[in-house]
Amino acid sequence: MDINAVNALSFEDFLEIFGNVIEKCPIIPAAIWIHRPFKSLADLEAHISDFIDSLPEAGKEGILRCHPDLAGRELQSGALTRDSQEEQHAAGFTDLRPEEVSHMRSLNSEYKQRFGFPFVICARLSGQRDITRELQRRLGEGREAEREHAIGEVKKICALRLRNLVLSDPPNKL
Amino acid sequence: MDINAVNALSFEDFLEIFGNVIEKCPIIPAAIWIHRPFKSLADLEAHISDFIDSLPEAGKEGILRCHPDLAGRELQSGALTRDSQEEQHAAGFTDLRPEEVSHMRSLNSEYKQRFGFPFVICARLSGQRDITRELQRRLGEGREAEREHAIGEVKKICALRLRNLVLSDPPNKL
Repeated sequence: MDINAVNALSFEDFLEIFGNVIEKCPIIPAAIWIHRPFKSLADLEAHISDFIDSLPEAGKEGILRCHPDLAGRELQSGALTRDSQEEQHAAGFTDLRPEEVSHMRSLNSEYKQRFGFPFVICARLSGQRDITRELQRRLGEGREAEREHAIGEVKKICALRLRNLVLSDPPNKL
Repeated sequence: MDINAVNALSFEDFLEIFGNVIEKCPIIPAAIWIHRPFKSLADLEAHISDFIDSLPEAGKEGILRCHPDLAGRELQSGALTRDSQEEQHAAGFTDLRPEEVSHMRSLNSEYKQRFGFPFVICARLSGQRDITRELQRRLGEGREAEREHAIGEVKKICALRLRNLVLSDPPNKL
C-alpha cells in the first residue's frame, strides 16, 4: 500500500489496518486520521509521534501499560497481539529455556514494581541477550527518564510496524 | 467487586477487567490506574472523565472513531466487543427489519460524512426509535458542539459499564 492508498481509506478501514501500530491504542491512529492527506510515510509517522508527545504524562504511562511483558504470561497463553507475537519471536523470546523465562519474569516484575509500567523495548532491533542486559541497566534509571526512554521505544516499534504496512516513498517523489 | 478489591489489582488485572470501559481505549484506564487508591466508584469515574477532558481535541475524536456504528457492519459480522453487542441488543438494534437497517446505515453514513466520526449515543438509556430520532436531530448540529455531545455520551456509556463491574459504595462508607 502506498501513501495515496492510505489517504483514500475511510477511518474504519484506516483503523482496521493501522489500529495496532501503537500496541492496543487504536485511539492514536484514530486521532491522527484527521490530518490526512499524509504527504508520506514519514509524515504519517510524525503525526503519530506528535500526538503521543501531546499527551499528558499519565497518558504516556497508559500507552506503556498497554504493552505485554517480554516472555510474560500473554506469550505463554497465546494471548499476544499478532504484532507482539512476531516481535517477541524475532528477538528469540519464544525459544527461552525455563530458567531464562524465570529470570526474565523476575526482572520484569522488579521493573514493574519500581516504575509502575512494564519494560518496553523495540525487540526487533536487538536479540534476547542484549535486551535482558538493557532491562537490567534500565532498572537503575530514574522514573521520568525511564518513561521518556520507553516512549522512544514505542515510537521505534511503531515505525517498524508502519513500514510493514506502507511502502516507503517512491524515489520520484520528493 | 468493591472499590477495595479494585484498588488491590495489579495494572495487568485492572486492564483485563476495565480495559473496555471506554470502547477499545484501554489506554484510558491504563492511564488513570496511577491514581489508585480510588476513594469510590464515583472517584474512579471522575478520574476517567478528567483524563478524557485533558486530551487534545484530536484525541477526543480518536475516542469517537473507536466506536462502532449502531446497526453497522460489526454488528452484522459478529465483530462487536461484548459490551457493544449487549448494548446494541438492549436498545433493539439486533431486531431491526431490513428496511430499518438500511435507514440506520444511510443516517450513519450521512453523519460520518458530515462530522468525520461515527454517531455515538448511550444506547442503554434509550430505545432504537428514540435513538434514530436523536441521530436525525444531531445531524443538524455544529461539529464542535457535536463532538462535545458525543464525548458526553461516551462518559455515560462508561458510567454504566463501570457500574456493571464495581459495586456502588456500601452505605456505611462515606
